[in-house]
Amino acid sequence: MAETGLGAMTKSERVAAFIVDFDLGDAPDGLIDMAETAFLDTVGVMLAGSREPAARIVCDVIDAEGAAPAATVVSRSTRTSPQNAALANAIAAQALDYDLSFMSGQSAAAIIPGLLPLAETIDAGPRDLIGAFIVGAEVCARLVRAFPTLSSEGGWHGAGIIGTIAAAAAFAKLTQAPAEKVPAIIGIAASMASGLGENFGTMTKPLHPGLASRSAMMAVELGARGFTGSATAIEGRQGFLAVFARGLHWDAAPFDDLGETFNLLDPGYKIKPFPCGGLLHTAIEAALHLRDQALPRLDRIASITIGATLHAVERVIDAYPWSEDSSRFSLKYLIPYALVHGPPMIEAFSAQAMADERIRAMAERVEAVVDDEFAGVTGSGYSPSRVTIVFEDGGRLEEVVTHASGSMEAPMSEDQIRKKFLSCAARAAGEPTAAELYATFRNFRDRPNLEDLWPLLRADD
Amino acid sequence: MAETGLGAMTKSERVAAFIVDFDLGDAPDGLIDMAETAFLDTVGVMLAGSREPAARIVCDVIDAEGAAPAATVVSRSTRTSPQNAALANAIAAQALDYDLSFMSGQSAAAIIPGLLPLAETIDAGPRDLIGAFIVGAEVCARLVRAFPTLSSEGGWHGAGIIGTIAAAAAFAKLTQAPAEKVPAIIGIAASMASGLGENFGTMTKPLHPGLASRSAMMAVELGARGFTGSATAIEGRQGFLAVFARGLHWDAAPFDDLGETFNLLDPGYKIKPFPCGGLLHTAIEAALHLRDQALPRLDRIASITIGATLHAVERVIDAYPWSEDSSRFSLKYLIPYALVHGPPMIEAFSAQAMADERIRAMAERVEAVVDDEFAGVTGSGYSPSRVTIVFEDGGRLEEVVTHASGSMEAPMSEDQIRKKFLSCAARAAGEPTAAELYATFRNFRDRPNLEDLWPLLRADD
Repeated sequence: MAETGLGAMTKSERVAAFIVDFDLGDAPDGLIDMAETAFLDTVGVMLAGSREPAARIVCDVIDAEGAAPAATVVSRSTRTSPQNAALANAIAAQALDYDLSFMSGQSAAAIIPGLLPLAETIDAGPRDLIGAFIVGAEVCARLVRAFPTLSSEGGWHGAGIIGTIAAAAAFAKLTQAPAEKVPAIIGIAASMASGLGENFGTMTKPLHPGLASRSAMMAVELGARGFTGSATAIEGRQGFLAVFARGLHWDAAPFDDLGETFNLLDPGYKIKPFPCGGLLHTAIEAALHLRDQALPRLDRIASITIGATLHAVERVIDAYPWSEDSSRFSLKYLIPYALVHGPPMIEAFSAQAMADERIRAMAERVEAVVDDEFAGVTGSGYSPSRVTIVFEDGGRLEEVVTHASGSMEAPMSEDQIRKKFLSCAARAAGEPTAAELYATFRNFRDRPNLEDLWPLLRADD
Repeated sequence: MAETGLGAMTKSERVAAFIVDFDLGDAPDGLIDMAETAFLDTVGVMLAGSREPAARIVCDVIDAEGAAPAATVVSRSTRTSPQNAALANAIAAQALDYDLSFMSGQSAAAIIPGLLPLAETIDAGPRDLIGAFIVGAEVCARLVRAFPTLSSEGGWHGAGIIGTIAAAAAFAKLTQAPAEKVPAIIGIAASMASGLGENFGTMTKPLHPGLASRSAMMAVELGARGFTGSATAIEGRQGFLAVFARGLHWDAAPFDDLGETFNLLDPGYKIKPFPCGGLLHTAIEAALHLRDQALPRLDRIASITIGATLHAVERVIDAYPWSEDSSRFSLKYLIPYALVHGPPMIEAFSAQAMADERIRAMAERVEAVVDDEFAGVTGSGYSPSRVTIVFEDGGRLEEVVTHASGSMEAPMSEDQIRKKFLSCAARAAGEPTAAELYATFRNFRDRPNLEDLWPLLRADD
């Protein structure tokens, strides 16, 4: 590899060079902050999600496997293999749809949930974890930039398809895979990528990052043992981009700035303020802005129109929810809920909340349309919304929100981040442990090792 | 489901109805024969492939998982979970590229390798296995017919993408999954489908059916426990066909004749006569037909031209092989080998055989072109070839083979099938056990149970 110029390297060899060359000591200011907050937010939502039915069923299947106890699963007393722990952690992380958005949905969701058990088994430290996350997230960003319409036009779920390759890069970094083995690891991972948009609103949606994380772990385990895969699996004629993006625009060039620019800094990620589909957050916030004015006359609403991007309108579930999972993607539910009760937090996504007749009645007046102003928006990173409420007397309220709270443009305060973490973590671990975990991840880079972390993540039942 | 007409059922509900309704007692003549021979051939190549590096590395990774010993892995002394056994068996089955071709490459490769360990854990009998295989193969056939260019134009590997869904249907049948849980099982499996053509010629190619079989097992385990997935995962707007076949022709209508016609009978499958890429078999046989005439003047060959379909020309490796896996797809290697040594059997795909300078020299004169007569052939089920040898003195030999031995058009005799099985099985299990296994699978439908089978498949090391 050293003898060939940049142009002669395959994209997987570019990833290999980035894995070998990236040194946290040379990282630009702010990058470690972004990584630390990503760990904090991910661990929080992972703990909260661990009690959801999707996560529990996957853990039942893992228990039946009976693998050797090598790594911790969040909020479980039994330990399992790194593959299974990655699977269980990653489905927990997305079970509430409350995890970080990065350039195309929650594309990086598979990385941290698998890095943690891997670190536990190889005794890696916090800075190793931070470096590996940055590598994985930057590879993830290159894949989104190479195929920006993977979700909006492709119908794929980014967490499943690019997440597998991105997580494999992260795990290869953490295990210090030699450069000559990385192309095979990426090649194996590319043939494990999957995840259909059709499964949004079912438990299979959060299963996608679970599978991605488990598959990436297996790709690294295989590649380390000399298993072979194509070195041109990303850009080759029958490779990931050509095959997954068939009929759509793709361009592998973004891989060439790996290590030179950091997409974790620009455009950065979004911390979700609500545990539901991220494309809807601007609409929810617009409704919340109108709430005080609308509250006295909620029973006289004639229509609620959500003007959004084509992608948002196509992805949302255009029906009243029939399950907790579908409620996270239903504008017909979420906008009335926000007007009646305020911010839709974890308790909003329950059978009890959905049974509210007042919300069900208002849902019939909600319509989602492609907004003229946002009709030209492509990709899924930017999802502005306009909410227009018309009352029976002809009165009218309108509000536009272009960036939801938690985005780089409207960042959360540290207090908001802390509150989100504590409310999430306390759900599974109790308040004292939640506070300890907050302290652990808020000063993550300075911890000498992770020995104290695993008991905090484990359930003591 | 009972209340809706055929048109109102989703394709996954059609699969559910087929699973519930299909009864081996009503099966047309010949169907059980086809299934029995499929088991026989698959078990043979699985045993032979179990000693290949790809299978051994996967077993090392499985050993590291340390799962509870529930099911037999072919030719291994340690037992593991059904998921892991399916993975190990299916990669072994395709490691030599010697397994059955069915409509689009070895599309059904994931089914039998996973059915066996599943049967062992739930104590199912031979007729249950036969019925489950038929269900899986027929669903597999519907997926190929729905998306016939998945490999030739899509760049996917059928064993990986449709194999996952087909195996899930087979495993659902064997476990008698209730009809109302089948759509979720199919939905989960559809989001686990993957496998890139770019990985042909590497160990990741046989990994595809391994992953498909493991994923299908997991989909059934999840679905049985109430995990949810989309009921429109096959034909929905962001479902399997729309997303995997984006930009290419697809049509879900073939699902509507499930249970009415049996594609295992027509067009049937092909038993591979050689352990290498099936698209090349007609070219190899054409070369073998010319061998006697060419043998006296092999050192005076000026050129060897292989005229084939566009798909075959695109899929073959147009270089001298650099590994055992790549040698199975290299016309530049296989045609000279056939002329010099005769049929390329297992020993042809070794570093020693590839090092033959006589073959390497002849390889430089081999060229693959799209043949005018076969240029219009689409899909990958039919792959005729024309081999033209031109000698330095202007002499010329030409031979066309349209269907390779082992196809329905040129079927193998029982003696050929038996010899293939015994040579394969003896490689891992020794001759006496190979003979016992032949007797077991040749009268499979009449065996009272499978108790005696598992010790025969297991290694006694």
